[in-house]
Amino acid sequence: MNRFGERFTMTTYGESHGKAIGCVLDGVPAGLEIDEAYIQSELDRRRPGQNEFATARKESDSVEILSGVFEGLSTGTPIMMVIYNTDQKSGDYSNVKDIFRPGHADFTYFHKFGLRDYRGGGRSSARETAARVAGGAVAKLMLSKIGITFYSGISAIYGIEAKELDFSYPASSPIYALDPSVEEAQKAAILDAKNRHDSVGGVATLKISGLPIGLGEGLYYKLDAVLASALMGINAVKAVEIGDGIHSAQVLASQNNDPITANGFKSNHSGGILGGMSNGDDVLCKVHFKPTPSIFIDQESINTSGENVHLALKGRHDPCVAIRGSVVVESMAALVIADMTLLNMGRTMDGIKGYYA
Amino acid sequence: MNRFGERFTMTTYGESHGKAIGCVLDGVPAGLEIDEAYIQSELDRRRPGQNEFATARKESDSVEILSGVFEGLSTGTPIMMVIYNTDQKSGDYSNVKDIFRPGHADFTYFHKFGLRDYRGGGRSSARETAARVAGGAVAKLMLSKIGITFYSGISAIYGIEAKELDFSYPASSPIYALDPSVEEAQKAAILDAKNRHDSVGGVATLKISGLPIGLGEGLYYKLDAVLASALMGINAVKAVEIGDGIHSAQVLASQNNDPITANGFKSNHSGGILGGMSNGDDVLCKVHFKPTPSIFIDQESINTSGENVHLALKGRHDPCVAIRGSVVVESMAALVIADMTLLNMGRTMDGIKGYYA
Amino acid sequence: MNRFGERFTMTTYGESHGKAIGCVLDGVPAGLEIDEAYIQSELDRRRPGQNEFATARKESDSVEILSGVFEGLSTGTPIMMVIYNTDQKSGDYSNVKDIFRPGHADFTYFHKFGLRDYRGGGRSSARETAARVAGGAVAKLMLSKIGITFYSGISAIYGIEAKELDFSYPASSPIYALDPSVEEAQKAAILDAKNRHDSVGGVATLKISGLPIGLGEGLYYKLDAVLASALMGINAVKAVEIGDGIHSAQVLASQNNDPITANGFKSNHSGGILGGMSNGDDVLCKVHFKPTPSIFIDQESINTSGENVHLALKGRHDPCVAIRGSVVVESMAALVIADMTLLNMGRTMDGIKGYYA
Amino acid sequence: MNRFGERFTMTTYGESHGKAIGCVLDGVPAGLEIDEAYIQSELDRRRPGQNEFATARKESDSVEILSGVFEGLSTGTPIMMVIYNTDQKSGDYSNVKDIFRPGHADFTYFHKFGLRDYRGGGRSSARETAARVAGGAVAKLMLSKIGITFYSGISAIYGIEAKELDFSYPASSPIYALDPSVEEAQKAAILDAKNRHDSVGGVATLKISGLPIGLGEGLYYKLDAVLASALMGINAVKAVEIGDGIHSAQVLASQNNDPITANGFKSNHSGGILGGMSNGDDVLCKVHFKPTPSIFIDQESINTSGENVHLALKGRHDPCVAIRGSVVVESMAALVIADMTLLNMGRTMDGIKGYYA
Repeated sequence: MNRFGERFTMTTYGESHGKAIGCVLDGVPAGLEIDEAYIQSELDRRRPGQNEFATARKESDSVEILSGVFEGLSTGTPIMMVIYNTDQKSGDYSNVKDIFRPGHADFTYFHKFGLRDYRGGGRSSARETAARVAGGAVAKLMLSKIGITFYSGISAIYGIEAKELDFSYPASSPIYALDPSVEEAQKAAILDAKNRHDSVGGVATLKISGLPIGLGEGLYYKLDAVLASALMGINAVKAVEIGDGIHSAQVLASQNNDPITANGFKSNHSGGILGGMSNGDDVLCKVHFKPTPSIFIDQESINTSGENVHLALKGRHDPCVAIRGSVVVESMAALVIADMTLLNMGRTMDGIKGYYA
Repeated sequence: MNRFGERFTMTTYGESHGKAIGCVLDGVPAGLEIDEAYIQSELDRRRPGQNEFATARKESDSVEILSGVFEGLSTGTPIMMVIYNTDQKSGDYSNVKDIFRPGHADFTYFHKFGLRDYRGGGRSSARETAARVAGGAVAKLMLSKIGITFYSGISAIYGIEAKELDFSYPASSPIYALDPSVEEAQKAAILDAKNRHDSVGGVATLKISGLPIGLGEGLYYKLDAVLASALMGINAVKAVEIGDGIHSAQVLASQNNDPITANGFKSNHSGGILGGMSNGDDVLCKVHFKPTPSIFIDQESINTSGENVHLALKGRHDPCVAIRGSVVVESMAALVIADMTLLNMGRTMDGIKGYYA
Repeated sequence: MNRFGERFTMTTYGESHGKAIGCVLDGVPAGLEIDEAYIQSELDRRRPGQNEFATARKESDSVEILSGVFEGLSTGTPIMMVIYNTDQKSGDYSNVKDIFRPGHADFTYFHKFGLRDYRGGGRSSARETAARVAGGAVAKLMLSKIGITFYSGISAIYGIEAKELDFSYPASSPIYALDPSVEEAQKAAILDAKNRHDSVGGVATLKISGLPIGLGEGLYYKLDAVLASALMGINAVKAVEIGDGIHSAQVLASQNNDPITANGFKSNHSGGILGGMSNGDDVLCKVHFKPTPSIFIDQESINTSGENVHLALKGRHDPCVAIRGSVVVESMAALVIADMTLLNMGRTMDGIKGYYA
Repeated sequence: MNRFGERFTMTTYGESHGKAIGCVLDGVPAGLEIDEAYIQSELDRRRPGQNEFATARKESDSVEILSGVFEGLSTGTPIMMVIYNTDQKSGDYSNVKDIFRPGHADFTYFHKFGLRDYRGGGRSSARETAARVAGGAVAKLMLSKIGITFYSGISAIYGIEAKELDFSYPASSPIYALDPSVEEAQKAAILDAKNRHDSVGGVATLKISGLPIGLGEGLYYKLDAVLASALMGINAVKAVEIGDGIHSAQVLASQNNDPITANGFKSNHSGGILGGMSNGDDVLCKVHFKPTPSIFIDQESINTSGENVHLALKGRHDPCVAIRGSVVVESMAALVIADMTLLNMGRTMDGIKGYYA
């Protein structure tokens, strides 16, 4: 179950401190220009070690395509991409080899699989999300051809919330902030936590523009449900909201319904999704990340023998995983929309007759 | 894409005002006692027309099993269940035949499929959730044999939040309230909205107890991700939280991590899920429902020709869809866990060798 | 795993002597005229009890559509069809309740599921294929709109092979013979076996015309592979050939390759499939059915306690299951092609851009 | 659709003359010793260039594992294997760059995808089957732990059929012959064709021993159907038989049914499968390969502009693809059985209760 999607699918492989991570994309249509520089630029947005707000782990995250592309175009066959791990300091983990790190997957993986890859979380590490970004970049390339674009950024850190969302601003902010007016306060919260050897939670907001009406499939592959799955499945995510989200549960229908006019919807409380399908308006989601569980403060835990221990973690970790996580949010959303775009084809007889005419 | 699950799967069919709704369950293990009275009792919990807090539509919601059960036991073959629609007042909808109802799926379905089943929302109606409850009931029967139990109730209505959660209380509350101390205020909010021909949003909370450690599969079928998909896919749901959810994004790791001791976790901020797998603690989710979009107040909309119109809906609708929705939350969660329980088998060589010994 | 297909999917339910059998079709495009009389006519072709060459079991096989169709058109939502069992003489089976019938699924089902539905084979009965024919009929309706047609008939009985294949002849033959010149000999072989309380094997040949070039998906959903699966999965089938089939393994490439010219292929040894994709020529398959295992001759077997017994079967059975099986062959092929037709959409960027223009 | 299997899944990638081919295995249970030497030895059995009966292309086919294995054991996470292409003489193909090769996938791929990877067949090349052998080797490692073993060999070449099958003999035969008494005649037929710049067809026979009773899932994932799909999907395969196969269609039930006794089945006409499930006896399949379509004789064809041309192929090709194909048959069968083994777990309540006790 390391595959995502039904028609535009991504299968990822690799562990934090293994030889490589990467993905196989299956279902990419033939004839798409595969812009490798663009894919690399997306990886660079997620890449660690770029400033004081991210982990110090240095990875070049150079992506190489081993199949599925010929003379610059996708061939319709599987695109395999590999990113070799270069800065694998497994030694960092020797002292926690037998200790479960609170808030981490160590405990559950050990009990599920009966063994332990203690090197930096192994498969459960957020390092795997680099593969998602590579896959999402190809999805974005495809979707850009039909006018669909993706935006994301940080709307809140440690409860300090953006007042307005400017999706053009994150590109120039080291914390991908959406609101310059609170950016400094948000930065301060992160550095304050970092100085105390702690970490903070944060919220990423996603916007998708240019969607056709009607993306979303049946009752168990609704657009909002699949987005929820894609986003909740990102490391450290604990809540997902569509449109007004939790606020919708606090109001009246007369406040929440979006009136429809000949010129479009008068508001967008729904976040661009009705009945599990895109309504043509911008899709909006909020994605809530918990603080990075790896902190350098004394914590209570147990070892694999079930004995109480005290834990003093070392290693290199993001003081706020939401920041780089926002790039992953965009990538997963792009994979969802690419899949929905393909799935939607063939839902009407007119569409089928036109295609095969 | 009207199928849910990978191994314990449910495919539903039927429309609000068609002949019948129902489901086919595939993957139910052989030898399970199929207690039809229990299945019916679950449907009765979701059944409309029982009090002033729900729609006046009267449906007996009698479920009949047409296959897959022999001499009281599941045979390992598909279990098909049918619920005939009896109170289909399609006439209620003749005046909105060509008008899109704000907040509803009419608009998106029409554009996706190029035609319109105007009778009560057709397939997009929450009536379909009766089939989910029937399916979920079988999942619960199976899971009860290995000690897994499900609880749900209403934690908030119109922003009036429960202070404490008593999962034994909803059974005796007409609004399935979890906190008797706020129940009357919550009821009043619903009736107040109803009297103004409006509706209100609400929040259901789910608890699952007795889970083994390690349910959840790989990186794209994580337990929290699949729960998020299952719950976000329920009609009117706009946000899903796992454990502390949005609160986790507002705190430090030192506040959010759950210390581990030889006697178990000292807290449960994670909601019983780490790295996408159950950690043995109770799973906790909050599910946010928007207000029922069908209200009897004048609304702006357009018709299928794209002309501006004013809409005065008739019909019978829930003033707060979260209430009956909480039963559906439980059902979908049971389907998720049943699926995860089967998927988890065979994840270790020891397990395989033991099974085939 | 009672679902067939990826995009145009059919899930079947029901047992031979249960209340009903039927199917849910998911993925049928919206706007298709659902001609119920045509669906019924397809079921009538497969219906038992029509002449001396088929079982005496009388079933009207009346199909009813319970969902997914509104005002004569498919709505894009699941189409559920039900066929009630009317002539369930379960009493016929009381004497073999605990005895495994040689050549039947009783033995394997009992060991897999740990219990036994002894009534006429339960789920493993060929009666379930009526549901496949109903599903296949809808697939044919869809495919007829883009010029794809299906033909089938009997090419061999008990080793008596057709010399020429006339696909217009089976409609007027009680044994669906493809070659009138051997029809009488084939009939005689069937009746001879029947008179001896035995049964005979036979071969059905399938032809599909009008296919676009390029149906078939990737390396693990090739057109020939999926056809092989669909056809081998029909009750009693033991071999499937594509094009020249086994003969291809006995010749040289210079004899087997089909030369290509500006006017098309000069021969069709390949059976219309190259590299797992349709090449635009007729698809041709041969499907080999073993003799119906239920015979009324003394046979050695064991009972559920593992004791040796002699078996004297009663009941009503086809003396040659290939005959009615040929209709099922067509139906399964139609389901395969419908699925491939939908899957093929979106395999090129040009196709995607055209669809969303 | 480049993925095979439901629970034990393999996704392959790569083209004949691209950088690499390989696979990702998902669903391999944790705790399996991954014997890399064994995997390599399986690849060596399929490796080209070993004698005069195979293509002269030299590939070391060295497999490298990049993920999913830690300290010699599978971790339960995706196992990615890569085989770099070393002897890619793309130049061989420059003269057929725009010409469709009869009997090949060029024609269909070009029409499906709208572009052409002319280098040695690209993705459609049998070279991809090396990845299948790597995947199948891991499946065999797993299955060996529960007593399941696989055998294969050549039963016929150019119509010269084995009289008896000795599954211990192929290991010492350069053509993997099953019957030493016809081996020389089979060799001569191959060399004779080769000398005439032609190629011949052949038949591989597969045997699987040690299966538990009851492998095979429901009506659309039957063991025989999935084997048929797996085997028909191998390059050049045109027919698949289970057990007596086509012979079953030529006899009476009294000749074809396998009597059951307290000591097991008295015969094995069924090929070890009843009702789509293993019956505990050996599974037997015959797989018919057409002659390699690449021959060095003048052939009629067309180019991508649709003009008639004459084709004089160069390159290096197997004179009989069935030989190395027999190894792929085993590999695909192992993948099927591994998948069925996992799917079968959880089909009874007793099994579930035992697993979670």
